[in-house]
Order: sequence, then structure tokens, then C-alpha cells
Amino acid sequence: MEKVKVISYGMGAVGGFIAKFLLEKEGVEIVGAVDVAKDKVGKDLGEVLDLKRKVGIKISESIESALQKTKADIAIHTTSSFLKDTYPQIASILKQGVNVISTCEELSYPYGSEPKLAEQLDALAKKHDATVLGTGINPGFLMDTLAITLTSACEKIERIEVTRVMNAGTRRVPFQKKIGAGLTVEEFQKKISEKNITGHVGLEQSISMIASALAWKLDKIVVQSVEPVIAKKTVESKDIKVNAGKVAGLKQKAKGIMENREVINLDFQAYIGAEEEYDSITIKGVPNINQKIQPCVHGDIGTVAVVVNAIPRVINAPAGLYTMKDMPVPSATPEDIRKYIKTV
Amino acid sequence: MEKVKVISYGMGAVGGFIAKFLLEKEGVEIVGAVDVAKDKVGKDLGEVLDLKRKVGIKISESIESALQKTKADIAIHTTSSFLKDTYPQIASILKQGVNVISTCEELSYPYGSEPKLAEQLDALAKKHDATVLGTGINPGFLMDTLAITLTSACEKIERIEVTRVMNAGTRRVPFQKKIGAGLTVEEFQKKISEKNITGHVGLEQSISMIASALAWKLDKIVVQSVEPVIAKKTVESKDIKVNAGKVAGLKQKAKGIMENREVINLDFQAYIGAEEEYDSITIKGVPNINQKIQPCVHGDIGTVAVVVNAIPRVINAPAGLYTMKDMPVPSATPEDIRKYIKTV
Repeated sequence: MEKVKVISYGMGAVGGFIAKFLLEKEGVEIVGAVDVAKDKVGKDLGEVLDLKRKVGIKISESIESALQKTKADIAIHTTSSFLKDTYPQIASILKQGVNVISTCEELSYPYGSEPKLAEQLDALAKKHDATVLGTGINPGFLMDTLAITLTSACEKIERIEVTRVMNAGTRRVPFQKKIGAGLTVEEFQKKISEKNITGHVGLEQSISMIASALAWKLDKIVVQSVEPVIAKKTVESKDIKVNAGKVAGLKQKAKGIMENREVINLDFQAYIGAEEEYDSITIKGVPNINQKIQPCVHGDIGTVAVVVNAIPRVINAPAGLYTMKDMPVPSATPEDIRKYIKTV
Repeated sequence: MEKVKVISYGMGAVGGFIAKFLLEKEGVEIVGAVDVAKDKVGKDLGEVLDLKRKVGIKISESIESALQKTKADIAIHTTSSFLKDTYPQIASILKQGVNVISTCEELSYPYGSEPKLAEQLDALAKKHDATVLGTGINPGFLMDTLAITLTSACEKIERIEVTRVMNAGTRRVPFQKKIGAGLTVEEFQKKISEKNITGHVGLEQSISMIASALAWKLDKIVVQSVEPVIAKKTVESKDIKVNAGKVAGLKQKAKGIMENREVINLDFQAYIGAEEEYDSITIKGVPNINQKIQPCVHGDIGTVAVVVNAIPRVINAPAGLYTMKDMPVPSATPEDIRKYIKTV
């Protein structure tokens, strides 16, 4: 079997991490790269990734242009969190008959927030015999797929609580900026109102995915507003010092309500100085299940893993739009990635 | 849609727990029951289950006899741990075109230990347009499917360790007897050599399933002998008192070896007086993942859940033999079970 041919669509931080990993990974080759940023188009992938070498692939401005000289099996798409923004890009890839895995948070479970776009993507994928999946570490795994998986050990379920607490002090600077670390509360609120800080995108999608897996018809999903976490004492990391009273990061909760009961509760916290970092899932039911991953799974590494590990599954799947809950049990691909691809 | 028609095949402890749960569960009905024990055949299911009422279903001696007056969608089969023993029974069900979920431990991943029987079951299932799955809480979930799922957040994997520690003091008496609680070490060893104590069946299958999911070609699987856990001080539970020096239960380890390295390590412990009960999964890789469920998932409740929750998935699946890793992401079925069945 030939190597799996990948188009790297999106040269931001996450797209870069995935591309670097793919350049090392056995059984796969990057055959093209796309970014809309004028200052990246035309440059060699190696330069854009800050490698010390040229890769021999120039950044294209569109999927059509990237595919002029090559075929591709799949595109890894990493440009924006919102499906309204990414729809034209993902549609353009599907129209070329190329499979897509996207980190677009809203695509992880689009049937609630963007049902029409979801329907169109499914139709387009089927028309062009391609498969499209939205995934990542979160949404896509920690606060939805893993919680769903754990419910399978339960006879009855009353309530599901998922908490992710990250110490942003150990993360990259752009992430620290994204969560408002170091700002005053006023500055933080201003950035929120200007949508320069969006918090975590995906809580609504994770709740919808869990509810759908359990066939729960929720009355509503309440996504609370993003709130600052204020440093109680001065906290420091390698890159930043946050004085007491300043913003150390953010927190956000979301709830799924059914028959006037809160049946799903997601709690996301990312701030500098978090003393305990963890991902926990608590199921109240028969039996109760208390699960904890400690420390929490690193977001960037986890997203690279979940996305790349999904490549063979997406290639194996029938055409159409999928979410993680409808795919086979996910797993790592530590060997040559071709070993995970079904040959019929 | 009509209710899902289930045959309850096997009226031992686990079969009884599942049958009782199914009698309460929405969207499903038990239409027949099978057991080979002469003292059960002909009795009403309610009597065999120690209910205070008749169910109106008589225990049949075979699947053919149970199906004389009714059709069935699926049989829940719970008779023995070993595929050599259960093969004729499972084959007899498949020949009737009825789907099967079996708690037969060796069926959870039969391709390593019983490749020929696995091939025959797959062929038989396909011939009669039926699906067959071996599952339960363990093997089937805690030490394999869940570990596999967690690997999907990893870019690289060096080693996987799964530990299950159960305090047998909180479990039913037959389980305490099965693990040798209260015996002297000599009595325990005698029962081991006479195969009256077998330990946990399934470690080899769980290792094979994990390795297969990761496309790891193991050199060998080493299942260590079952060892007694000796009570260091007198330990007591509701039903039993174990004096210091006597056997409190048992422990067993198994390893998957690849290129002279131990890459998978399973550790099963069940004894009275275990101070901490948990299920843990540790992945050494990129990133490391340390996951713990505390307390451990109750074996009987978990098996009922995993088996019943698999009913819609098995009905939805194409014909053939499946293992958990090849099914869609598992999940609970808290609503009417028909809501999880695909209607095409």
C-alpha cells in the first residue's frame, strides 16, 4: 500500500503541531499544505514550521491549488472554531473527494448548533464519496467520547459531571494570552465583550454528543458566560507572572437540562497556578463511577494524537459526516499507520 | 417497533442478574429462557430467579425448544468461561439466525486462544445473518476496551498497565468462595490444581485485544499462575471471617511481551480486606496517562450493564463475529432500548 497522502490545511499552532508529527510518522506523507494567510502562501512548509530544513512543499492558498500536482487521501483541517467560518473550506475539500478531519470545535457535534450546515456537509461528503469528522482532545474526547464510553458500565444514569482543570502555567504563551492571564478584570471583561477572548469552544457540542449517545432529549443546554479566575496570590510560570488580584485564567460551565433536572454538567477551568490538574468524569447512577486522569491530558499533544489516530478510521469509514460517538472505539496508532487501514 | 425479544440462555448468577434487569427494562421482553440443568428445566423463570411472581416463561433445555413458540432477536448467553464448552451452545443459537451476546470470557477476544472456533463462529454467524459478541465488564471493558480508548489520546505508546483491585468482602458469597477466601494455603493450592479455583479468566484475551487494536505483534503472552493473597491480620466481611495467615483471596498477573519488552501488564487482585478498591490504567507514552476509577466498578452490576448496553449495537451490526474494539464507541442505554436501534 502507498503511504497515506495528507494535505495539511491550516498552518496555525495546532496545524503546525500536527504537521510536525506527521512528518515523523511512519506510513504517511504530507503532499500539500494550505493556508489563507498571504505571508505564508508560497513559502516552504519547513520554513513555516520553523524547521531547519526545507520539506519541498509550498504553502498553497486553496485546496484546489494544492491538489493540482498531487492526489490526497485526507486533509487535516485546523483553521477556526466556528462552523460558519470553516464550512466553505471543508466543503471545498469534500468537493475534491478528499476525506477531512477538522479540529473545528463546532464540527465535533454540529447537529445541535448548526443542523443545516451539518446536513449539507453530510450530503456533500456522500456525493463525493468522502468522510468528514470533527475531533480533537476537547471537544472530541475528554469531555464527551470518554464520558460516553464510561456510561457503558452503567445500568442507570442520573447525572454526568465532567471537569477539566488545566494549569495554564505549563502551556504555551499564546494559550496563556487566549485565557487572559495577566490582565486586569476590566481588561478581561473588555476582551470578552469584544470576543477577543472566547473561552473554550465546544462545551455545547460535548453536551449534545453525550445526550445523543444516551438518547436523552434535553430541554435546553445552558452555556454560562466565561468568568475570570482571579489570582489569590502572585503566581508565576516560566513565561509570565500574575500578581494577586489579576486574572490568572478563566473558567466556564455548561449544563444539559432535562425535565427540570441538570443531567449533564461540564466544568472547564484553565488558569495559571492551578494546584491540581486533572480530567474527571463522575457518573451518578447504578453504579456510580468516579474516574480521574491526573494530571490532565495536555491539550496540544492530545489533539495531535486524537486527530492523527483518527486518520485510519476516517479512511475506513463509509462516506458521510461522522462524530466520534459513531466511530469504532478509538485507539492509538503507534505503528505504521497503514497497518490500521482496512484493505478490502 | 416491537419490543426487542430476548432469550436468556444460562440461569446461573450472572444470567439471573441480567434476566432480572431485563424484566424491568423498557423496550425489551424476555421471550424464552434456556438452561441445561435438569432441576431448572420446566420451571417458571420467576421461580428460578427467586422472584415472588411467575413470569410465564418456562425454562427450556435448548434454544430449539425455546424458539418453538416464539421468535427472538437476540440471546444473552452466560454459561461458561471457556469457548470449547460454549461453542456448541453459541453455534446452536446462531443456526437459528438469532444474535448472541455471550459473557464467555474466551469469546471476548477469541482470535488468539481459539482462532479456529473464532473463524467457525464468524462463518456461521454470516451464514445465518446473525451477529455474535463476547463481552462483560472484564474481559470486555475495564482491562481492554477502556484502555484501548485511552490510548487514542497518545501520540506514542511504550507500555500499558492495567490494575483491578477488588475488595471481595463486599461481594456475594459464591464470588468469595470462587477466590478461595477462608481457605488454608494448602487447600487453596489443591483447589487450584484441581481447577476448582481458576482465578480470573480473560487476562490473555484482554492483552490480545489491546495488542490487536494497536497493531502490536506480541512475541508472547505470559499468564502467570494464580497466587493466594494471605491475610496479614484477621479480616471480616458481612459473610465471612478470614483469620490472619489464611487465604483472603487471589491475585494474578499477565504480560504481553514484544521485542523482549513487557509492553502490556495486567494485574488482577480480588481479596477480602483490600483497603483500596480501584481500576487503574497507566499508559507510558507521549503523553503519559494516569487514569483511575475509584472505587472499582462492581463486577456483577458492570457486567449486566455492559451486556445489556451492547444489545442495540449487536442488533445494529452487520452479521459476523465482533469484539468490543471493533464496535462503535460503547454507551449506556438509560431510555427505552428501542431508541438505540437503527431503523433503516
